[in-house]
Amino acid sequence: MTYCVGMRLDRGLVFMSDTRTNAGVDNISTFRKMTTWETPGERMITLMSSGNLATTQAVVSLLEERTKAPDDRDPSILQVPSMFQAAQLVSGLLREVIDGHSRNGQQADAGFGATLILGGQIAGSEPRLFLIYPEGNFIEAGDDTPYFQIGETKYGRPILVRAYDPSMSFEDAVKLLLVSFDSTIKANLSVGLPLDLQIYEKDSFARGEERRISKDDPYFNTISTGWGDALKLAFDSLPDFEFDAD
Amino acid sequence: MTYCVGMRLDRGLVFMSDTRTNAGVDNISTFRKMTTWETPGERMITLMSSGNLATTQAVVSLLEERTKAPDDRDPSILQVPSMFQAAQLVSGLLREVIDGHSRNGQQADAGFGATLILGGQIAGSEPRLFLIYPEGNFIEAGDDTPYFQIGETKYGRPILVRAYDPSMSFEDAVKLLLVSFDSTIKANLSVGLPLDLQIYEKDSFARGEERRISKDDPYFNTISTGWGDALKLAFDSLPDFEFDAD
Repeated sequence: MTYCVGMRLDRGLVFMSDTRTNAGVDNISTFRKMTTWETPGERMITLMSSGNLATTQAVVSLLEERTKAPDDRDPSILQVPSMFQAAQLVSGLLREVIDGHSRNGQQADAGFGATLILGGQIAGSEPRLFLIYPEGNFIEAGDDTPYFQIGETKYGRPILVRAYDPSMSFEDAVKLLLVSFDSTIKANLSVGLPLDLQIYEKDSFARGEERRISKDDPYFNTISTGWGDALKLAFDSLPDFEFDAD
Repeated sequence: MTYCVGMRLDRGLVFMSDTRTNAGVDNISTFRKMTTWETPGERMITLMSSGNLATTQAVVSLLEERTKAPDDRDPSILQVPSMFQAAQLVSGLLREVIDGHSRNGQQADAGFGATLILGGQIAGSEPRLFLIYPEGNFIEAGDDTPYFQIGETKYGRPILVRAYDPSMSFEDAVKLLLVSFDSTIKANLSVGLPLDLQIYEKDSFARGEERRISKDDPYFNTISTGWGDALKLAFDSLPDFEFDAD
C-alpha cells in the first residue's frame, strides 16, 4: 500500500508521499513515489503514485522517454501547453501500461492498477491538481474538494476533513499532513517512513522546499508524540457522558 | 457497510453499532445490528454484525431457533456452558448460512459474507469478547488487543488507538466511541445514525444501560461539534513546522 496526499492551497500546492512498497508483509522495500519535471520559470509538474510499482515506474519512464537514447529525449510533459493536457498524457500512458501488462504474459494475483496524483502549474494558468484513475480517466480538485488522497486513505482522513483550510500557511499544511501521515503509519504497516515532502509556491514555476522526513526527524517525532497527548487533552476537554442525562 | 465496536474494559464490556445498511448508495435502510440474549443472574450475551444482512439475520433467527414453533424453542445460546462454546455455536451457524447461500440459487455480485462481534459473560468465568470471521473461525480479545471493530473500521481507529485505556469509566468509553463513530460517519456515507449503545457491567449477568442515539441526541451533537473544535485546538497546540529548522 501507500499513502500520498496532494493539497491545493491559496498559496500553491503541497505534496507528501510515503516510500513503503510491499508484496505481502514479508517483502517490504523503500521507493520514492514522487517525481517532478520542471522548466524553471515556465512550469513545475509533480506526480505521485500508488498501486503496482512496476506500472507506476513504467509510466514515469515513458514520461521521461527512456525508450529513446538520452540525447534524443524531449519529454512531452515539458511541452504540453496545459495541465489538463499533462493529465491526458499521463492518464493515456497509465492506461496503456496497465493494458499491456494485463493482456500479455502470466496473469498475476495482484492487479496491475495504479492511481496517480498530478499537480503543478504551467505559465498562463493557475496551479491545478488532478487525481488519475487506473481506468485512465481523471478528476480535478476544486474548491469543494481541494485535496486528493491515494493509497491507504482512511485513517488519515478525519483530521484532514476537520483541520484543512485553503488559506493556511505552508507550515501549517506540513504540520497537518504529518499528523495525517502519523495516524496512518500508526495504524497500518503498509505505510512507512521516510516521507517525501514538496512545496510548490504559486507562480514560482519552480520546485519549492523539498524535504525527506526520516524516522530520526526531530520535528516528526515531536508531532507524533505530541499528537497523542494533544488528542487525549482534546478528548478530555469534551463534556462527559452521563447515563442519567437522557 | 457498517461500523461496530466491542470493547473490553476492566469494568465490563461496551458495545456500539450503527444501523445503516445499503445495497448501493441509492438503497439505504435502517436495521438494528445488535442482538442480546440473557438469563438474568446467569448470562448475558450480545452479538453485533456487519456484512450481508440476509446472512446476519439468518444467523440470529437460527440462534433464536425460529425454525421451531415458539413453544418448542430453547435456544442453545442460553444453554452453552461457556462463552467459547457460544462463539463456536455462532461461528458454526454463520459458516452454514454462508455455505448454504453460496452453493444454491443464483450467484450474487456481492458476497454472502459477514463478520460478527460476540461478547458477554456466563456465570463462572470472566467477560469475554470474540471476533468471528465469515470463514467460521474466531479470535478473542486479550490485553494487547482489547477491542474489536468490524465494518468500516479505519476512519475511527486512530482515536481508539490513542485514547483507549482499560481502566476508563463506562462514561469515558461512551465518549470515546461517539468520537470514533462521529469521525466515521463524517467520512463515509455507508455508516449512519442512529447508533445503538449497550453497557455490560462485569458480574452483573444482565444487560446494563442501553441507549439509541439518534441525530437529535443533544450529547452526540455536542461531541460532534465539540470534537471538531477540540481537534483544531489540539492541532494548533502542536509546535509549528519551520522550513529552516532542518
